[in-house]
Amino acid sequence: MTIFNNINRANKLGEIPGLVPVPFSNVVINDKFWAPRLANLRNVTLPLMFNQMQEANYFNAAQRGWKRGMKPTPFVFWETDITKWLEAASYSLRTHPDSSLEAMLNQAIDFLVSLQQPDGYLNLYFTEVEPEKRWTNLRDWHELYCAGHLIEAGVAHFETTGKRTLLDPVCRYADYIDSVFGPAPGQRRGYDGHEEIELALVKLYRVTGEGRYLNLARFFVEERGRQPHFFDIEAWERGEDPANFWQTGYEYNQSHQPVLEQSEIVGHAVRAVYLYSAVADLAKEYNNETVFDTCLTLWNHLSSKRIYITGGIGPSAHNEGFTKDYDLPNLTAYAETCAATGLVFWSHRMLQLDPNSRYADIIERALYNGILSGISLDGSAYFYENPLASKGTHHRQKWYKCACCPPNLARLFMSLGQYIYSVKGDTQLQVHLYIQNEVNLQLGGRAVTVRQLTDYPWDGTIRLEIEPQEPAEFELLLRIPGWCKRAALRLNHEELNLEIQKGYARVNRRWQKGDFVELVLDMPVRRQYSNPAVEENIQRVAITRGPLVYCLETADTNIPLNFISLSDTANLTSRYDPTILGGIAVIEGEFMVIQTQDWEDQLYRSEPPTRTSFNFKAIPYYAWDNREAGEMQVWLRTNRT
Amino acid sequence: MTIFNNINRANKLGEIPGLVPVPFSNVVINDKFWAPRLANLRNVTLPLMFNQMQEANYFNAAQRGWKRGMKPTPFVFWETDITKWLEAASYSLRTHPDSSLEAMLNQAIDFLVSLQQPDGYLNLYFTEVEPEKRWTNLRDWHELYCAGHLIEAGVAHFETTGKRTLLDPVCRYADYIDSVFGPAPGQRRGYDGHEEIELALVKLYRVTGEGRYLNLARFFVEERGRQPHFFDIEAWERGEDPANFWQTGYEYNQSHQPVLEQSEIVGHAVRAVYLYSAVADLAKEYNNETVFDTCLTLWNHLSSKRIYITGGIGPSAHNEGFTKDYDLPNLTAYAETCAATGLVFWSHRMLQLDPNSRYADIIERALYNGILSGISLDGSAYFYENPLASKGTHHRQKWYKCACCPPNLARLFMSLGQYIYSVKGDTQLQVHLYIQNEVNLQLGGRAVTVRQLTDYPWDGTIRLEIEPQEPAEFELLLRIPGWCKRAALRLNHEELNLEIQKGYARVNRRWQKGDFVELVLDMPVRRQYSNPAVEENIQRVAITRGPLVYCLETADTNIPLNFISLSDTANLTSRYDPTILGGIAVIEGEFMVIQTQDWEDQLYRSEPPTRTSFNFKAIPYYAWDNREAGEMQVWLRTNRT
Repeated sequence: MTIFNNINRANKLGEIPGLVPVPFSNVVINDKFWAPRLANLRNVTLPLMFNQMQEANYFNAAQRGWKRGMKPTPFVFWETDITKWLEAASYSLRTHPDSSLEAMLNQAIDFLVSLQQPDGYLNLYFTEVEPEKRWTNLRDWHELYCAGHLIEAGVAHFETTGKRTLLDPVCRYADYIDSVFGPAPGQRRGYDGHEEIELALVKLYRVTGEGRYLNLARFFVEERGRQPHFFDIEAWERGEDPANFWQTGYEYNQSHQPVLEQSEIVGHAVRAVYLYSAVADLAKEYNNETVFDTCLTLWNHLSSKRIYITGGIGPSAHNEGFTKDYDLPNLTAYAETCAATGLVFWSHRMLQLDPNSRYADIIERALYNGILSGISLDGSAYFYENPLASKGTHHRQKWYKCACCPPNLARLFMSLGQYIYSVKGDTQLQVHLYIQNEVNLQLGGRAVTVRQLTDYPWDGTIRLEIEPQEPAEFELLLRIPGWCKRAALRLNHEELNLEIQKGYARVNRRWQKGDFVELVLDMPVRRQYSNPAVEENIQRVAITRGPLVYCLETADTNIPLNFISLSDTANLTSRYDPTILGGIAVIEGEFMVIQTQDWEDQLYRSEPPTRTSFNFKAIPYYAWDNREAGEMQVWLRTNRT
Repeated sequence: MTIFNNINRANKLGEIPGLVPVPFSNVVINDKFWAPRLANLRNVTLPLMFNQMQEANYFNAAQRGWKRGMKPTPFVFWETDITKWLEAASYSLRTHPDSSLEAMLNQAIDFLVSLQQPDGYLNLYFTEVEPEKRWTNLRDWHELYCAGHLIEAGVAHFETTGKRTLLDPVCRYADYIDSVFGPAPGQRRGYDGHEEIELALVKLYRVTGEGRYLNLARFFVEERGRQPHFFDIEAWERGEDPANFWQTGYEYNQSHQPVLEQSEIVGHAVRAVYLYSAVADLAKEYNNETVFDTCLTLWNHLSSKRIYITGGIGPSAHNEGFTKDYDLPNLTAYAETCAATGLVFWSHRMLQLDPNSRYADIIERALYNGILSGISLDGSAYFYENPLASKGTHHRQKWYKCACCPPNLARLFMSLGQYIYSVKGDTQLQVHLYIQNEVNLQLGGRAVTVRQLTDYPWDGTIRLEIEPQEPAEFELLLRIPGWCKRAALRLNHEELNLEIQKGYARVNRRWQKGDFVELVLDMPVRRQYSNPAVEENIQRVAITRGPLVYCLETADTNIPLNFISLSDTANLTSRYDPTILGGIAVIEGEFMVIQTQDWEDQLYRSEPPTRTSFNFKAIPYYAWDNREAGEMQVWLRTNRT
């Protein structure tokens, strides 16, 4: 008896079944914003990451025959940096063959495959360092988490190259895991403290068609949080008191209650979004409304009470995760790059199940802000944490001891193309993101080339040229972003009435060669305010334009940012400046600066401080900390009380 | 060769030499504000404190013959709670005989005297608990600090009763200390990690006339911070590395550099103000300008950059002390009651040396705000920390494990009368504080009774009735508080021109029976703003009236204080309300409250939050946390940017 069998299988998801993303491999991104970044990721970042891992002795651990006491000791989750990098490199090679990168990829695969044991087990740490501890602490030691990323890498490598060099070992390992874990007598009714394998097994199921992998994913999700609690049992088996868990409760890994009973997003942020990505996958595979509703409730909770304006999630360093509603401090924001990345994974799955622009809005918000900030403009340094304010001490690093974020960001960006479009059968094309590209599709029974031309995110005009081989009937759905208050749509120069459903404007017609659609999204500079429950942002304002959140940086001034405010009425204008930060639209206007000279040695006085105005500029948040070190603020003081 | 002998002895202090406080025993406070508080301190607080110490087994430690392992282990500074209480009780008995309190006092004295060793040594912990460790860790173990408070108690007991029951043992102990510490061969060139004995020895010198005590105080001050550093030597002698000092540096106990080279107030706040009180005493006794200048530089630094508007000092719990300029957080303000109390001690000494209202302003600010907050209205519970904001979790306690603050506050208040007046010979009477009282003095060669009639701090009108036995010529100096922007002075109904020097209005005449002076201090509700360098108070305003700082408390509302702001233009009025909090002037007016209902599930939006107005009231800061538990704020949001 499983949770899934017990529930009402009425299909609320039936309205748009089978909405699927257009694979990144069909999409050629050729814009001014992303294309150079992606090229840099391929040419600079991926090789650099490989070098970093080599220098950190990732690949030597096994080849040298690691012995106790040797430095460095591999981390329990070391190979996930490799497998996430492998995933990113695979995506890159699919669209951009590169023999040098391919050599690195093969070296990494050889290394991983060399770790596989006769029984199929494949793990660096628990083969080389503490083999006697295999499967003894799933709560803390990331064993199945590592398996998950390995599976994802195997799937990605197979899907992009057709080669089974990694997929076959991965399947052997998955088969072995399937033999160890499960409800049958003699099997462990366990699951991992860091979710990941669940979504990976769904991917493996999809690429192999092997139902056992889907079942195992379902098993892991269904077992999670049940009583008697697996992590209690496991701790007792180790001779430990479960109450001594180093985190304060099982909320940390979302096992505090059965998954389908969860309604609030809690605990470690990356764990949460990986889990709910898998749950969304299961909702799709089982076409199950209740499972989807669980996801929706959690996603709504996250997006309405626990997310930064940058798309960052998980405010606290203490648990790398969630705290309480509206607790969104700026200076100490953890907002791990990986968490925002995982949020994109989850939201993308939700979007296919429930085509509503709210998901794409969050994807866009995270992509252009809280994730893109995670990598320097030159592609060589990374943020693990993405605070919304800095006193000048927070900087990107070349690598991290726990280097989860860099390759995570890389695998997301290397597959960016898949987030732009979805199709419903061949009758509907949904455009979620506006990025200049060309894509080849099968729509209305015809081969269709769609060319998206735009200078997004700097400009809100998007031209879609539809080139069917033969006239083809299908519906085009264009996302009207949540940030956009006024949009216009033209078909071959003719103004169309905007019919917006669930955030998408719809155009249904028999498309001819030469047809084009022009969408103009009004993209003024806009002030954003926080729900007053976000205590830290009371009397503060953020500047946004289109999908971009802006910030002030002391690289542009010698005035401490705390002395600067933005009046409620000051005019702000946007101007593209190709000369700084790789080319950005700066936002300029009259800011106010509090005067300090007239205070002398007074600490308190009855005359209020005075302010003078000065012209200043804001830059996109993602571009901060790419010049000299200094302060940064997203939420600026304002005179609006 | 000593520092004091090396310096220029030109006497800048000569202008007003010999300004001395009028003893509290001459002053009968009979007002509505302080008199009931002082009665309550006598009748409720002092007996309660004695009971608390009894219940905590303070007095049993020796009588029972404490043995290792017995609970409780006396603290190294336990007897200072007793000796400070003794000081307070002595002051109380001087003006208000009370046989019950006297019995407690005698019991405490008997206990202390019973601890004295044949060599004169007198310490609870190092006699009963670890006698082998005597004088082995002055840096951390408060041995001379305890001696200091014992000396102060002995002096107070002698001065108020004429009895030598405690003074004689104290002198024996001081003589013993004087034999152990000093510059002679075989003596320790040491000093205590917690200053206190320095000022106590000056008191002992003044009451006994024994110059060795003054010399020893000078020695302790002069040695402090010299190289080679005593705390280094002492640590090495214990076999410890001085670098392992549990605080980060000798700034903590003001021994980071020689005292007379210090120019910034640093480290543990109570330690600092006790030290500089002693330094001010030495400046007076040696009539030394350089020593005074050191004090003045430090006092100016403190009062211009490191003091809360409440008179609280020492923002950080980490070192119970100072951090950096303008670092004055509200919610986490440490602002120990003892530190503000010590600031009054220091400022009072400065005021006698340099009659300038700035010192009396600080004394008044601390007395009516950051110290008075340290005790509940019913006199039974205490704040150790006095934050300027609370989320509702900070409350007064009945006692503390480290209970330094309650008896410290008590000894200050029990001698409150001495802070009101100073005289210069018999030619000048300075009035520093406005508290209704009657005092008998010798002025202009005549016995003079002065009656101060006022409803201060609720009203700014003060009537001084001068009753000389025979006409007497002397100058009357009346402090015009820093908070007062407009004052009027009348002599026998006749308006006088205000001649203000160093913050005091002066009236020189031959006073007759029936003469009276009326001073009217304009006391409107006033907004106060912080120097913008105090980051946390930018866009915030405090409400004050006269000497009182006000605050909002959620006992008066169900609205979270973070949603409340005070516009720059709202009219605020004061009204005396005898029905709440023992009778207070409340300040009422139109405040603004941010609206949350119109946000629903939105976390961010482009429409600014709206506010509505409501009538609300502020209460004096000292009176907070005397009703149901809730939030409190001194620094309120304002629309003034």
